[in-house]
Amino acid sequence: MTSAITREVLQRLATRGETLATAESLTGGLIGSLITEVAGASANYVGGAITYSTALKATLAGVSDAVLQAEGPVAEITARAMAAGIADRCHADWGLAVTGVAGPESQDGHPVGEVHLAVACRVTGEVQHRRLDLAGDRGTIRSQTAHSALQLLADSLI
Amino acid sequence: MTSAITREVLQRLATRGETLATAESLTGGLIGSLITEVAGASANYVGGAITYSTALKATLAGVSDAVLQAEGPVAEITARAMAAGIADRCHADWGLAVTGVAGPESQDGHPVGEVHLAVACRVTGEVQHRRLDLAGDRGTIRSQTAHSALQLLADSLI
Repeated sequence: MTSAITREVLQRLATRGETLATAESLTGGLIGSLITEVAGASANYVGGAITYSTALKATLAGVSDAVLQAEGPVAEITARAMAAGIADRCHADWGLAVTGVAGPESQDGHPVGEVHLAVACRVTGEVQHRRLDLAGDRGTIRSQTAHSALQLLADSLI
Repeated sequence: MTSAITREVLQRLATRGETLATAESLTGGLIGSLITEVAGASANYVGGAITYSTALKATLAGVSDAVLQAEGPVAEITARAMAAGIADRCHADWGLAVTGVAGPESQDGHPVGEVHLAVACRVTGEVQHRRLDLAGDRGTIRSQTAHSALQLLADSLI
């Protein structure tokens, strides 16, 4: 299932002649790993950051300290800034970002399963956001986050 | 098997009160994903970079352009620089880096399965390197690279 969506994303990027970078918090590299399972992914996927700690959301993905202090790591505005920031830092046409709570414990008042996805397009400057409220264990939440993020990106590439 | 080694790495880091950052090329986020499968990984794993493109090995992991131009992305010196660079950029005590050829095609004269692992310790300034020559398909090479890298790190943390 996830393999099909990664192939779809890479095909659509190839057709458009565009590139992608990722910034992952709760998935910790899972999205990048799924994309790079596909041979030839390097033609359209440049890489990105695993911004697992809050500090790296600033230093590697370019989220401002003001945003992180006001809203914290799990927030719509943080996901949007991560997506735009990683595309910018990596000189990619598209940025895909995920942040949220994989569990088993809630985080700063955010429940397990609260997830924010964002897709940024450097060409248009537009950033899309989607909030998920997922059920299940840590593994389920992480894999559903990865799949939904790739689906949101695929929909943006039509 | 890989789950056991990730738990071992995280336990040893916790005992030492130290942190880890990763820089991944051919594994594309697989190592980070495996580490963050473990609940509570954030106590000792800060994140890092997926330096899939050569350019990101410079911009995100701090490998010098001179090294990349002279030796290319698949080389011992590049793996060493990625490990030291990502630990530095992420203010982590340890840096773990992998670069190599997952296939199915060879790259710049390097055969499929040539892999370079490096572990950098910011406290001592030491960087260890290990070369692997792996057989098998893309998936096998990627998973064996991740496992061997985590094992090299575990051995360094004794």
